[in-house]
Amino acid sequence: MTELLPNYVAGRWQSGSGAGTPLFDPVLGTELVRVDATGLDLPAAFAFAREQGGNAMRALTYRQRAGLLGAIVKVLQANRDAYYEIATANSGTVKNDSAVDIDGAIFTLGQYAKWGDGLGDVRALRDGDAVKLGKEPVFQSQHLQLPTQGVALFINAFNFPSWGLWEKAAPALLSGVPVIVKPATATAWLTQRMVKDVVAAGVLPAGALSVVCGSSAGLMDALQPFDVVSFTGSAETAAVIRSHPAVAERSVRVNIEADSLNSALLMPGAAPGSDAFNLLVREVVREMTVKSGQKCTAIRRILVPAEVYDAAAEAIGAKLKGVTVGNPRNENVRMGSLVSRAQLDAVNDGLEALSAQTTVLYDGRSTPLIDADPAVAACIGPVLLGARDADAAERVHDVEVFGPVATLLPYRDLAHGIALAHRGQGSLVTSLYGSDDAALALAALALAPSHGRVHVVTPEVAQAHTGHGNVMPMSLHGGPGRAGGGAELGGLRALDFYHRRSAVQASPGVLAQLGL
Amino acid sequence: MTELLPNYVAGRWQSGSGAGTPLFDPVLGTELVRVDATGLDLPAAFAFAREQGGNAMRALTYRQRAGLLGAIVKVLQANRDAYYEIATANSGTVKNDSAVDIDGAIFTLGQYAKWGDGLGDVRALRDGDAVKLGKEPVFQSQHLQLPTQGVALFINAFNFPSWGLWEKAAPALLSGVPVIVKPATATAWLTQRMVKDVVAAGVLPAGALSVVCGSSAGLMDALQPFDVVSFTGSAETAAVIRSHPAVAERSVRVNIEADSLNSALLMPGAAPGSDAFNLLVREVVREMTVKSGQKCTAIRRILVPAEVYDAAAEAIGAKLKGVTVGNPRNENVRMGSLVSRAQLDAVNDGLEALSAQTTVLYDGRSTPLIDADPAVAACIGPVLLGARDADAAERVHDVEVFGPVATLLPYRDLAHGIALAHRGQGSLVTSLYGSDDAALALAALALAPSHGRVHVVTPEVAQAHTGHGNVMPMSLHGGPGRAGGGAELGGLRALDFYHRRSAVQASPGVLAQLGL
Repeated sequence: MTELLPNYVAGRWQSGSGAGTPLFDPVLGTELVRVDATGLDLPAAFAFAREQGGNAMRALTYRQRAGLLGAIVKVLQANRDAYYEIATANSGTVKNDSAVDIDGAIFTLGQYAKWGDGLGDVRALRDGDAVKLGKEPVFQSQHLQLPTQGVALFINAFNFPSWGLWEKAAPALLSGVPVIVKPATATAWLTQRMVKDVVAAGVLPAGALSVVCGSSAGLMDALQPFDVVSFTGSAETAAVIRSHPAVAERSVRVNIEADSLNSALLMPGAAPGSDAFNLLVREVVREMTVKSGQKCTAIRRILVPAEVYDAAAEAIGAKLKGVTVGNPRNENVRMGSLVSRAQLDAVNDGLEALSAQTTVLYDGRSTPLIDADPAVAACIGPVLLGARDADAAERVHDVEVFGPVATLLPYRDLAHGIALAHRGQGSLVTSLYGSDDAALALAALALAPSHGRVHVVTPEVAQAHTGHGNVMPMSLHGGPGRAGGGAELGGLRALDFYHRRSAVQASPGVLAQLGL
Repeated sequence: MTELLPNYVAGRWQSGSGAGTPLFDPVLGTELVRVDATGLDLPAAFAFAREQGGNAMRALTYRQRAGLLGAIVKVLQANRDAYYEIATANSGTVKNDSAVDIDGAIFTLGQYAKWGDGLGDVRALRDGDAVKLGKEPVFQSQHLQLPTQGVALFINAFNFPSWGLWEKAAPALLSGVPVIVKPATATAWLTQRMVKDVVAAGVLPAGALSVVCGSSAGLMDALQPFDVVSFTGSAETAAVIRSHPAVAERSVRVNIEADSLNSALLMPGAAPGSDAFNLLVREVVREMTVKSGQKCTAIRRILVPAEVYDAAAEAIGAKLKGVTVGNPRNENVRMGSLVSRAQLDAVNDGLEALSAQTTVLYDGRSTPLIDADPAVAACIGPVLLGARDADAAERVHDVEVFGPVATLLPYRDLAHGIALAHRGQGSLVTSLYGSDDAALALAALALAPSHGRVHVVTPEVAQAHTGHGNVMPMSLHGGPGRAGGGAELGGLRALDFYHRRSAVQASPGVLAQLGL
């Protein structure tokens, strides 16, 4: 029997009383560890976090809490090698892909530590200036932001066991709000290990950080009005969370990041071989293959002028041909596996769903795997699909295939291209490739209302741009509509979710005593 | 048969095909008009607003839209007398109470017209400064706020048919988002008349403002991902709205303002007859009687040091004795009726629910009505309840009696008083009465996380303070938890709900072309 990972709640390590759900190596098929949350007293665990954790965290200033984030960075850096080993074993990712998850988390924590330090030694934030409520300034309104007096529950996705925890925990902890994380079972190990290391280092007050591995049963029931919940995952589960009495009846604040049919758009007039064309091709291949396409922000739809459709198909296909797939432990492998056989099945189902409305422009599925048994490993080569009638191919705009798959779509003119991007019904990100600054700015303004982020690649930023799918902590991460309507990161904007705004109406004398 | 009020949707007046629901004079019992929405093509109506209205509004700049708000102010001012007549007849309110609804709306519109003008001739808003995404400033992130490309549906409450429309419509229209209002049936007339006057004046583009009177059936079904819905009313209906597929599955953004057990707290040490004591008494009586206590922000729980409980009961009761109740057309009447007999029944039910845990400290129910038949009119005199064991009287912290009713509660020390205020589980507003600026500021900080607004009354603002229950457009209106978690007003903060945030990542050259 493999090790049963304990949960950390109510200030102590507690093992579930059930047999446990096994976690596997998706390349070798071997069982790694087991997780279980059966029998935990969740209401007590949440109350402990809310009271012990919350009181201790709120007693600190923003600067002090920023210091805690810095201390977490040190703990994670000290144990970084172990995290890479777990990622290789449990996520099947090559080193560069593991880095997106692990080093991306450390970078994000470090940014919030820096920004938080700038907030100073206060325990509430001034929100704008005081404004007078009458003709004379004798009675004024001062808005404040104060840490919510509850817990932050994170129900996370399998693709980012590290970054998915810390990109949410950094602003939550900086806000003085205790965190309870429920990682996706398939890759819960890395999340659990990181929490274990941080707990062992004694960095945080008791109750500030908890981890529950296994089933999410009972977690939503434990939420109370001042708690918040942040979910990353499928639109179906999101709907269940939104309809739960905690949200529907108790006004628990909810943040959702769900499906997203992200797009990349090559601007009109970009000829094959031009800088813009080449930059699009490079970015599409990177997005399709990084983490085997298992990124919420990955490019799913490639929008190009109709006249370069064939050239784009050829150029992307040619580059995909060079992508080696297999065991991430082999240094010749560029792309590891999907996270599980279940996920491989889901990708194959998605390809099947799209097959009626698309043709296969490049098929990496027949390329032999390196150091991996196709009967066991959750590996799949990249697949480029195409649909010459982009309007009619409705499934392409609806079905998110969460793997190394994207669809090339031709557009007639820019208005058509933008309309196709909007067919995603709200996405996390779109990227534009061109060299006319004014035209790019207009297109960005047209796409921005339905995208949380618009990433513009011009030749002069060929080396400096941060990547279509890379989520930088400075920028908003989230998108409207199908993408869930959530908002994460965006610098200190992320703190809003963990704060309550209040307007204090009083004399200048009273307002002066607020100490802010 | 009374007049059947038509609905204004898809750019034209359309009558429902049903018999209609009658609206009554709550004092005289006479039928006034009827409303009905049967048979309207709501999907077409919403599509018209979304496309025609939205495109026309977004084509204007903020300054131009602010000009439209100014034009609406002029229309409303020109027809003000008619609104007062409708309010008297349909809401049963005395002139001063009608003013809160009617002139409050005009004031709020005027404020947004002024603030909007300051946003200038742009069509998107810069959200913070551009920040660099690497060591060099060659690639940067600029957050924008852009009008959401959908409609704003308002499902409103019966107590503010005028202000309830315009306090939401002002920021929506300023944001370029078309409005569809569904007023509460009991008092829909005033809302409908105001829309009629604004439509007749030709102030707004077609589709920018619609009104649906009668049943709300089908309204939520018509919502699409970029629409927003703002609801004011009961927690039960709020839960239905939050669980509707439009919200749960299509990520329609929702704003809720629901029940609220607001409190007023007299600070420790305030002796009977002191300025703070007298200011509390005056404000409690005002809050209990303005609009017959039918304000979401009204004081429901009065928290006083235990040693002044009897004195406070006596002082509040003595003032309530002077409140005359009856037909608002009689100039000797200070407090008119509730909005309907159904509401009168609800208030009596609420009083019954509280009776087991409270005693009656002042009972205005036996005082004869002026010019009104108690068998017909929805009138009720003010009732002050009390509970010497504030902790044990749990219903007092849970049951919102939406009428001229409040409960006096003694506290042991300030920590106990603050804990009792928090028993409301999230409220719109609390008010503090005292003269020690530092102590008041500390109490305000302790109460702010669970209150959208903290109103501090000190002797020097006795004349200048804007009132516990008055919602000023400069300050946030909304509260966490039981209050629904919503956010309205707060100056230009209100525009956030009607905008989508997006981060444009690009070279400084592209960002410079955004035209902001």
